[in-house]
Amino acid sequence: MSTHSTPNRVLRLGIIAAVAAAIWWTPAPEGVQAEAWQLLAIFLATIAGLVLQPVPMGAVVIMGLTATVFTGTLPIRDALIGYQSPTVWLIVSAFLFARCLNKTGLGRRIAFVFIAMFGHKTLGLGYALGLADLVLAPGIPSGTARTGGVLFPVVRSLCSAYDSEPGPSSKRIGEFLMMTTYQIHSVTCAMFLTAMVANPLMRDLARAVADVEITWGGWALAASVPGVVSFVALPILVYVMVKPEIRRTPEASDLAQAELTGMGPMSRQERSVLAVFGGVFLLWVTGSWTGLHATAVAFLGLCVLIVFDVISWDDVLDERSGWNALVWFGGLVSMATMLSNLGLTEWFSGFVGGYMEGWPWLPVMAILVLVYLYAHYFFASLTAHVTALYAPFLATAVAAGAPPYLAALTLAFYSSLCASLTHYAGGPSALFWGAGYTDIKGWWSVGFAISVLFVAVWMGIGPLWWRTLGLF
Amino acid sequence: MSTHSTPNRVLRLGIIAAVAAAIWWTPAPEGVQAEAWQLLAIFLATIAGLVLQPVPMGAVVIMGLTATVFTGTLPIRDALIGYQSPTVWLIVSAFLFARCLNKTGLGRRIAFVFIAMFGHKTLGLGYALGLADLVLAPGIPSGTARTGGVLFPVVRSLCSAYDSEPGPSSKRIGEFLMMTTYQIHSVTCAMFLTAMVANPLMRDLARAVADVEITWGGWALAASVPGVVSFVALPILVYVMVKPEIRRTPEASDLAQAELTGMGPMSRQERSVLAVFGGVFLLWVTGSWTGLHATAVAFLGLCVLIVFDVISWDDVLDERSGWNALVWFGGLVSMATMLSNLGLTEWFSGFVGGYMEGWPWLPVMAILVLVYLYAHYFFASLTAHVTALYAPFLATAVAAGAPPYLAALTLAFYSSLCASLTHYAGGPSALFWGAGYTDIKGWWSVGFAISVLFVAVWMGIGPLWWRTLGLF
Repeated sequence: MSTHSTPNRVLRLGIIAAVAAAIWWTPAPEGVQAEAWQLLAIFLATIAGLVLQPVPMGAVVIMGLTATVFTGTLPIRDALIGYQSPTVWLIVSAFLFARCLNKTGLGRRIAFVFIAMFGHKTLGLGYALGLADLVLAPGIPSGTARTGGVLFPVVRSLCSAYDSEPGPSSKRIGEFLMMTTYQIHSVTCAMFLTAMVANPLMRDLARAVADVEITWGGWALAASVPGVVSFVALPILVYVMVKPEIRRTPEASDLAQAELTGMGPMSRQERSVLAVFGGVFLLWVTGSWTGLHATAVAFLGLCVLIVFDVISWDDVLDERSGWNALVWFGGLVSMATMLSNLGLTEWFSGFVGGYMEGWPWLPVMAILVLVYLYAHYFFASLTAHVTALYAPFLATAVAAGAPPYLAALTLAFYSSLCASLTHYAGGPSALFWGAGYTDIKGWWSVGFAISVLFVAVWMGIGPLWWRTLGLF
Repeated sequence: MSTHSTPNRVLRLGIIAAVAAAIWWTPAPEGVQAEAWQLLAIFLATIAGLVLQPVPMGAVVIMGLTATVFTGTLPIRDALIGYQSPTVWLIVSAFLFARCLNKTGLGRRIAFVFIAMFGHKTLGLGYALGLADLVLAPGIPSGTARTGGVLFPVVRSLCSAYDSEPGPSSKRIGEFLMMTTYQIHSVTCAMFLTAMVANPLMRDLARAVADVEITWGGWALAASVPGVVSFVALPILVYVMVKPEIRRTPEASDLAQAELTGMGPMSRQERSVLAVFGGVFLLWVTGSWTGLHATAVAFLGLCVLIVFDVISWDDVLDERSGWNALVWFGGLVSMATMLSNLGLTEWFSGFVGGYMEGWPWLPVMAILVLVYLYAHYFFASLTAHVTALYAPFLATAVAAGAPPYLAALTLAFYSSLCASLTHYAGGPSALFWGAGYTDIKGWWSVGFAISVLFVAVWMGIGPLWWRTLGLF
């Protein structure tokens, strides 16, 4: 937040205004309505705002929406259309679920259970932390809240338990645990529709751009095999590269057991959360058969949690991250929806399609994915990356003839996988980098190696699996 | 909140479910679609929930929405349609404006300025407090936040300054000041679209039921003359009935002056708020000419306040009342909108219209208004009253031949005026009653006398003014 200082702010607002003006005053290409072109100018300026953040994200988006109305680009109801999106409310609900996991201590308990079970060796400890992240992923749609909020304190205390602090002793075990936990979150984020905050945004964008409907179960199914393979391979790769000095960790398991003993048996509230989450996941997974919308299921879970006093209405109103996501996410959905409704998305596809005619879609898709992945070196937020690049890359892939559902899912997966690359890649990277266990060279080389692993798995095994599923 | 205890809760939830079941299993009348009738059952059960509050309002509404989706009554997007409503976001913005008034101390300053100017006599003190309430009303859409939050502490400290405490000394000045300040808020709430939280809800209901468009300026104009007349008459009536022992209060003026001196000159932030509010009001008042939507204007004001650091994004996310209003209000708007879209509102109007044929609309309207007003003896919240009764009463009035715009506004005014009646009438009544300066008999007799004054003014002078405006 310290980056929002005033002189800086004026400069940044100036750049954003310049982006808007430059596009606004460029004549609209033939076949594009004036409103669509104006909206594109405001939309791209908003994305510049998300990257530069002269004011926090939510405020940037409100400014964008205000601009659409005051310039006569959109009527007010269309500017607010995103707030009707069930996807937006799914995210708000998921933040409330995350609150339940934190508030009741169930999240920590799950981490300690896995450590007690698998944490006898250093590598096992890495898997234990990863498994905790994986189990929590469907219910905590924010890497910052999950890997940063729940797991980071556990990792940090494990490091201290082995006298592995930033500096020379970081090599004992700290660097390995920090890197593994952070890096594995790039995989868990990619595995579920509700595991990363921008995932549902991509579902909406995919609907608008490529006319495909991604369900919770469809996402999880397609991600499962490459996800599990990367999940298994990743700690080994980090282990080989980082070479932790401590290899056996029986104490970690004892420590976790002591923590669990200290926590006592599961409280009524924890059991309620577990039961509700079990039910919600079941209904999410079976959603494509039952026809129950994921958001309605989430609302039902929320109602049960409120009636059984697991979460109070005051807790709901206090869930600032949820309201934040509602505002910025809803506003972006408004703009994306209206860009599509005004025909710009279709025009862009046709425009790109003209150049793509006759090209084989497989190599085009492979190049698009690689560019999309490594473009994340230039972004400090997964959401900014998704907002800026997902729709045009998907439109291009589809224009080149790629099967729309496959292209939509593939790009969606890489939108999380790219988090491996840098120490500024997304929310939790600030925490894990800030802990001081790795230098930039260490992070970037491990991050790059992992990105190569991801490419191998998600471009090698992934397509075989998706072919088996009949996605193309 | 203490009323949400568990045994009570089960009983209340049972009653609500019974309401839903009773209507659900009653065969739908001819000409009503099954979905419309089912939605009516859920809607009325939701209103029963707002009255009984087994869980807080927001949770009741979420349950109602969940029920609409799980019963197959509404698709999820339709269940969320209210969250796209510009009216809902106007209310959220207004709560943020209220926060600015409180945070910067501008609200208190305004109260003390009026007291310093007009507070030399007891009656003048009443007017001073009323004027502060009137000036704050357009920007603080909640009686609880405005009259309760800003003014109540000022009133309470004035009482203490005159040694007027609950008990025998309450007659000195306390009872008069408490009653006047509370009662005048019934008038100020009626005077502006943004002065009471349910006012914009009625604008949406009026659009759905009677196809009339109420603007911010149109509301204020129609309410102005009867509003000012009741504003002037009310303190005199309370003065005559309550008979405060202290009649002259030069000390109050000095006290206010001292407070103002203590506050020092207006801060940059206060001046920013004043300037932004001035601009916002100007654009609201002129909205019907400029075509600028009230919500877009509010968003613009909000952007300016954020960029100039008067309100931080953290403040925005902390504004729990705003998020609360968003959830419950948006959900109610969803149901009301869909009842109308599914044709139930139209069917009801036709049904009532059949009985009303040939009746003269003026007496019908007068009876409807009186029943609507005094029905508030049975409600503990203005919003519950509005949600339950506004739409059917308006539909009946229109079916009887009343001019729709006139009927919509008239019922809207009485939705606030009815707050005079009881000590449980709405949010701030709990505070002013709880202060202990009046007994029930005192409150109910003054409240009833004031309701008669309101009827005289808003049924006598009101129609003359509205005729002058050409509303009928």
